[in-house]
Amino acid sequence: MKRSIEDTSIVFIGAGNLATNLAHAFYRKGFRVVQIYSRTEDSARTLAQAVEADYTTSLENVVPDAQLYIVSLKDDALVELLPQIVAGKGKGLWVHTAGSIPMDIWKGHVERYGVFYPLQTFSKSRLVDFHEIPVFVEGSSDEEVHFLKQIASALSRKVLEANSEQRRNLHLAAVFTCNFTNHMYALAEHLLQKHGLPFDAMLPLIDETARKVHELSPRLAQTGPAVRYDMGVIGKHLDMLADEPEMQQLYRLLSDDIHRLV
Amino acid sequence: MKRSIEDTSIVFIGAGNLATNLAHAFYRKGFRVVQIYSRTEDSARTLAQAVEADYTTSLENVVPDAQLYIVSLKDDALVELLPQIVAGKGKGLWVHTAGSIPMDIWKGHVERYGVFYPLQTFSKSRLVDFHEIPVFVEGSSDEEVHFLKQIASALSRKVLEANSEQRRNLHLAAVFTCNFTNHMYALAEHLLQKHGLPFDAMLPLIDETARKVHELSPRLAQTGPAVRYDMGVIGKHLDMLADEPEMQQLYRLLSDDIHRLV
Repeated sequence: MKRSIEDTSIVFIGAGNLATNLAHAFYRKGFRVVQIYSRTEDSARTLAQAVEADYTTSLENVVPDAQLYIVSLKDDALVELLPQIVAGKGKGLWVHTAGSIPMDIWKGHVERYGVFYPLQTFSKSRLVDFHEIPVFVEGSSDEEVHFLKQIASALSRKVLEANSEQRRNLHLAAVFTCNFTNHMYALAEHLLQKHGLPFDAMLPLIDETARKVHELSPRLAQTGPAVRYDMGVIGKHLDMLADEPEMQQLYRLLSDDIHRLV
Repeated sequence: MKRSIEDTSIVFIGAGNLATNLAHAFYRKGFRVVQIYSRTEDSARTLAQAVEADYTTSLENVVPDAQLYIVSLKDDALVELLPQIVAGKGKGLWVHTAGSIPMDIWKGHVERYGVFYPLQTFSKSRLVDFHEIPVFVEGSSDEEVHFLKQIASALSRKVLEANSEQRRNLHLAAVFTCNFTNHMYALAEHLLQKHGLPFDAMLPLIDETARKVHELSPRLAQTGPAVRYDMGVIGKHLDMLADEPEMQQLYRLLSDDIHRLV
């Protein structure tokens, strides 16, 4: 009897933002998510209930016979707990989801291993569609790569291979495009709130700034006082930030840096 | 005979990114764009041809009998050239499009004046749809405000009043949400190119980061190593940027600042 890829039994180690989104995505595609582990009972139970899985808060109680173990913990925790995590469960395929941890971290601990890295920002409160999310896989052998590609292709139409060196650069670039970008939104919100203005007014601008780089290189898409070296406006803006020293310093550095890249 | 708002005759002083987008938008809505002034003949002619207007490179030859003059120049140029720009054309309604220039700059030069500020990023090579763009207007009298709102409503469904103080804060916030955000994209592109990786891999992340803040406040939307204080990842990333001192400094400051705002 031919078994389909969706019969793969999956255990999640971790129930954070990424694990929550990924477990939901697998569940919706008909995969068998059999168990969720989290140190925090509430997180484990919430995710387990949503995807009809069991849960545990004890690593010793993680089932030993799953086909795929997806470990999605804070990097430090993964590194520290790894021997405990895999103990007695060496038959399965083990993957982590971290941009900045090399695949070789598994070496010597389990036989079949790899990385399953969906490049996206994940929050528990917002479940995303995986269809357009690039998933970068890496595996300890061609067989694992092939299997991870099949699994990933069930969720996304953008499945790619990346080695650990490439993945850590993708991750670093993602911190700039996502986390630092989001911080720019947060600083704008802070400023607008202070002056009783609605953050909503920024949304069409945020959307267009994002859309624009689908067509134009970011360097060509740049506008505003820094790129046209409008020192009058830059000076006024720095004055307006006199009572926000962190924002003022960032404004100055970012304006200089925009100019450096022109 | 009742005249419609689209009969308004408009002259553009300036043919840059904003003027180009705005002139096209008015033209498409059936307004009479009668003349384009630009110091650069090529810019003046290109825009004039596109919107079936005359053009000139000499301020003296700007027609004196238009109903609406839209001045869209670099801030320094507007301030410096203002007396020359308006000379002999005091009958029309004069507006500028600058976020950081107060309306009062017109005072004593012309009788009817105001500001027409579409909050968006504009490039000549990408004509945008004005329908969702917030347009903030300000006028020297209720009559001018009413008229500018009518004009703006022909283009956008989001027409709002803002005084000069509010507008300069909107502009400053926009520099963060747009120009500095775009610079984050540019830095990511730089990094990826250096390692032979495609910037396209970032687009789904860029889109989701933008979409997310339609639903969640940016502070709640934040993810990544800085907000979860993942010092292991932060340390690795700083090491990876050892040969990019500007990016390394920005990485450090932005990570600290994300933490400050949590």
